[in-house]
Amino acid sequence: MLTLARDLRRRKARERTGDFVAEGVRTVEELVRSPLEVRGALVSPALAEAPRGAALRAALEARGVPITDVDEHAFASAADTESPQGVLAVGRIPARDVAQLTGLAEGRILVLDAIQDPGNVGTIVRTAAAFGVAATIALPGTVDLWNAKVVRSAMGAHFTHPAFAATWDALDSLAGWPRWAADTDGAPLAPPYPRKVMLVVGNEGNGISTEARSRAERVVSIPIAHVESLNVAVATSILLYELRA
Amino acid sequence: MLTLARDLRRRKARERTGDFVAEGVRTVEELVRSPLEVRGALVSPALAEAPRGAALRAALEARGVPITDVDEHAFASAADTESPQGVLAVGRIPARDVAQLTGLAEGRILVLDAIQDPGNVGTIVRTAAAFGVAATIALPGTVDLWNAKVVRSAMGAHFTHPAFAATWDALDSLAGWPRWAADTDGAPLAPPYPRKVMLVVGNEGNGISTEARSRAERVVSIPIAHVESLNVAVATSILLYELRA
Repeated sequence: MLTLARDLRRRKARERTGDFVAEGVRTVEELVRSPLEVRGALVSPALAEAPRGAALRAALEARGVPITDVDEHAFASAADTESPQGVLAVGRIPARDVAQLTGLAEGRILVLDAIQDPGNVGTIVRTAAAFGVAATIALPGTVDLWNAKVVRSAMGAHFTHPAFAATWDALDSLAGWPRWAADTDGAPLAPPYPRKVMLVVGNEGNGISTEARSRAERVVSIPIAHVESLNVAVATSILLYELRA
Repeated sequence: MLTLARDLRRRKARERTGDFVAEGVRTVEELVRSPLEVRGALVSPALAEAPRGAALRAALEARGVPITDVDEHAFASAADTESPQGVLAVGRIPARDVAQLTGLAEGRILVLDAIQDPGNVGTIVRTAAAFGVAATIALPGTVDLWNAKVVRSAMGAHFTHPAFAATWDALDSLAGWPRWAADTDGAPLAPPYPRKVMLVVGNEGNGISTEARSRAERVVSIPIAHVESLNVAVATSILLYELRA
């Protein structure tokens, strides 16, 4: 478990094994509560001192999750955070793809086009879940959704919310979804809104790619003053709030 | 300049001197463009290689800002970021207080009640500026607004947006502002909205304090599903968007 957890810090290892790491009391609590398969947990003595630590250990045992106890030094070698809470768990990345979205009569699909900050992406997945978005899809160039910091920032949201990676080709196979791209030069977002929208949001510094722009039926924006732009997680959250059903 | 910049990493030094540090090309660009006093800049050879680096050096010189050239090692000892872009500037914290808000006929005042993550606070200041909020006020227990990471996350917003620290006593001296507090158990936010609102948002983990709650006329929330809460910067941004004039 220790070797596997260390290995899973690399994206390539996550892609090869199909496993990911959830770190910290809150995130592991959400994982244990979720329908995802949990392969094992790594625990250090710090967990016993953490609030809800004993309850979490009991929950892991009750679900039959194998627990490996290690010392603080070994734990730190696998942990992503600087002040880990003495617990991480290895889960199975769920099989999800665009096929599960066919037949949807209404809703919003969120597409992340080369968003690179793990904290931003995790926050966006958390908000997308909160507003009932049908799926959050990460295009190539976006940080891996199963990066430990993304998972932590999402507060467990993508254990239940359909977040997954896909290509433009896969998105093109989804018919009947008007594509809107968000950028600072777009038309101010205003109702009425269609029953179905696929919303594409872009990179922190560069905005949406030319590929996204050329495929968009509309480019929309949030009217702002005094500053050049909003943080991408903030802008995406406001757009999802405005477009909520 | 090097010693001063190093010293200003501590809140106590910022409070004693009235100076703060702006770090990175983008933030220093905004500082040079702002009305704030700039006391000096620290530059390493990395700046010459940074995009817009030469233009920024010229802008500093044009404003008569004294530039101290140091090597990368010395620069790193004063910088807050792990990959600094070879430039930081020391500015004067502007004199701002609640007195400048008296007589305002309408608007929104945002109050931060013990928000602790610098990235969240910076993002909130950036959004508050974007939506024309009259002032962002940090109560005791909130991270210092002039912390280098807050300044960087705000992308220069608080060089022009009135963001400052104040106590509940100072806020109490502002008459005629209905106080609303935001928390997950509040009533769903819905129009119509009054011409003046003072919105209090609370700590990442604990929500608003009992002090804030007891002083609030209304507790409001953003309706969400599937997750327990939104990120505090996201929630605050959506509230400011919804309450925008």
